Amino acid sequence: MALAYLESNKTNPTSPMSSPPQLILTQDQLKKIAAYKAVEFVESGMVLGLGTGSTAKHAIDRIGHLLSQGKLTNIIGIPTSTKTHEQASSLNIPLSDLDTHPVLDLAIDGADEVDPDMNLVKGRGGSLLREKMIEGCCKKFVVIVDETKLVDYVGGSGLALPVEVVPFCWKFTAKKLECMFEEAGCVAKLRVCCENGEPYVTDNGNYVVDLFMKKCIGDLRAAGDKMLRLAGVVEHGMFVDMATTLIVAGEFGVTVRNKC
Amino acid sequence: MALAYLESNKTNPTSPMSSPPQLILTQDQLKKIAAYKAVEFVESGMVLGLGTGSTAKHAIDRIGHLLSQGKLTNIIGIPTSTKTHEQASSLNIPLSDLDTHPVLDLAIDGADEVDPDMNLVKGRGGSLLREKMIEGCCKKFVVIVDETKLVDYVGGSGLALPVEVVPFCWKFTAKKLECMFEEAGCVAKLRVCCENGEPYVTDNGNYVVDLFMKKCIGDLRAAGDKMLRLAGVVEHGMFVDMATTLIVAGEFGVTVRNKC
Repeated sequence: MALAYLESNKTNPTSPMSSPPQLILTQDQLKKIAAYKAVEFVESGMVLGLGTGSTAKHAIDRIGHLLSQGKLTNIIGIPTSTKTHEQASSLNIPLSDLDTHPVLDLAIDGADEVDPDMNLVKGRGGSLLREKMIEGCCKKFVVIVDETKLVDYVGGSGLALPVEVVPFCWKFTAKKLECMFEEAGCVAKLRVCCENGEPYVTDNGNYVVDLFMKKCIGDLRAAGDKMLRLAGVVEHGMFVDMATTLIVAGEFGVTVRNKC
Repeated sequence: MALAYLESNKTNPTSPMSSPPQLILTQDQLKKIAAYKAVEFVESGMVLGLGTGSTAKHAIDRIGHLLSQGKLTNIIGIPTSTKTHEQASSLNIPLSDLDTHPVLDLAIDGADEVDPDMNLVKGRGGSLLREKMIEGCCKKFVVIVDETKLVDYVGGSGLALPVEVVPFCWKFTAKKLECMFEEAGCVAKLRVCCENGEPYVTDNGNYVVDLFMKKCIGDLRAAGDKMLRLAGVVEHGMFVDMATTLIVAGEFGVTVRNKC
């Protein structure tokens, strides 16, 4: 399955001189495989949530391509970030917003982590709030990842669990978050821009505090509520019980799993 | 008690020609009475949360006055809004922030509503988020109101229960909030500036959706969590179980009530 997808992207797949199928796939190739598979769920006439990030980007490219070919028609896209808005616009995907289309048929987006219950960590790309607003009101939410994103528990990759916070007294909020998850060995760090070391600012004008856990934080809903009750927290990057379908691309193919 | 406070503010209280004590007090006089009473809780050396609004303003004026007279010393104020910051600065009250002083001895602030359990509605002045951040980490939180602010239940005045929301798709968020409290007959309205009809923008760059209830919304903690779980909501104006002392000024005097 994986190879079939890759082959279809070669410039001259039928030439006898073409190189043999590449068996070791890059992470980006795996992302593309998952993304293309997800787009098979898209039907003409749908209102679609368009995710943000390197995996979602492949799906949006694919949707744009199918629209241009007339294989999909009458699609309305709801972008989850200004970046996605730009990409989708450039591909002539008709766009709208939640105010006009408060119910979506389907959203496709990547994730930074996926636990065994299909709970997600999202927001390392910085768009967790808009993603959560949009993907929270979709009939179906298809998550696309390469197999490196699968974790035993949320935070299990050792990478960031992002939390969007108001800039006002962010150090205080970060400290409170760190204390909240002290038992999980939490370390909180303000996200900064690589270029200039300035705080990273979200599309909503907020900062992001990245939480790094050493252990599982336990009940995710309880942990989420606790964070949200902290007045400086705008939103957290745990997407609990939201994904309805998970598409994982790995070295040996694509697996599709639906939420029971 | 009420009259004693008022008398002390007259320019010439001992003159035999001064007018007799005024028995019908204005709302602003009642606010001042409550505010002055609250300032009796302030001791030299304290880190103080400084509230926002017409009642808190009187307390800050009083603190500034006592500092200038040397009756209070070594006070550090943590303002809950840019407006309060300006007022306190103009009175030469030394100021700091939560990052530097994450634990406060006392906060003094007004409220828009107070229910029989000393739960509050705040934020009609637009500073609910910073107020909640600051007043949530005070050892004591003294709430000062005139008697018109007492209600049977949160929302019982028929006036706004404010909710700070991200500007992105605020209509969608407002609609979701309205549906959430449909049983309480909730109507959600975006707060706009009187001068130009533009959306009111908070110190944090967000909008405010005011909720108007016809009935009690039930369990306040559950209602609060529900609102916070809505991704577009930044914070709500219910201050549940936060006040430790309530000072109410009414026509017949001042009552002071401590949380059991």
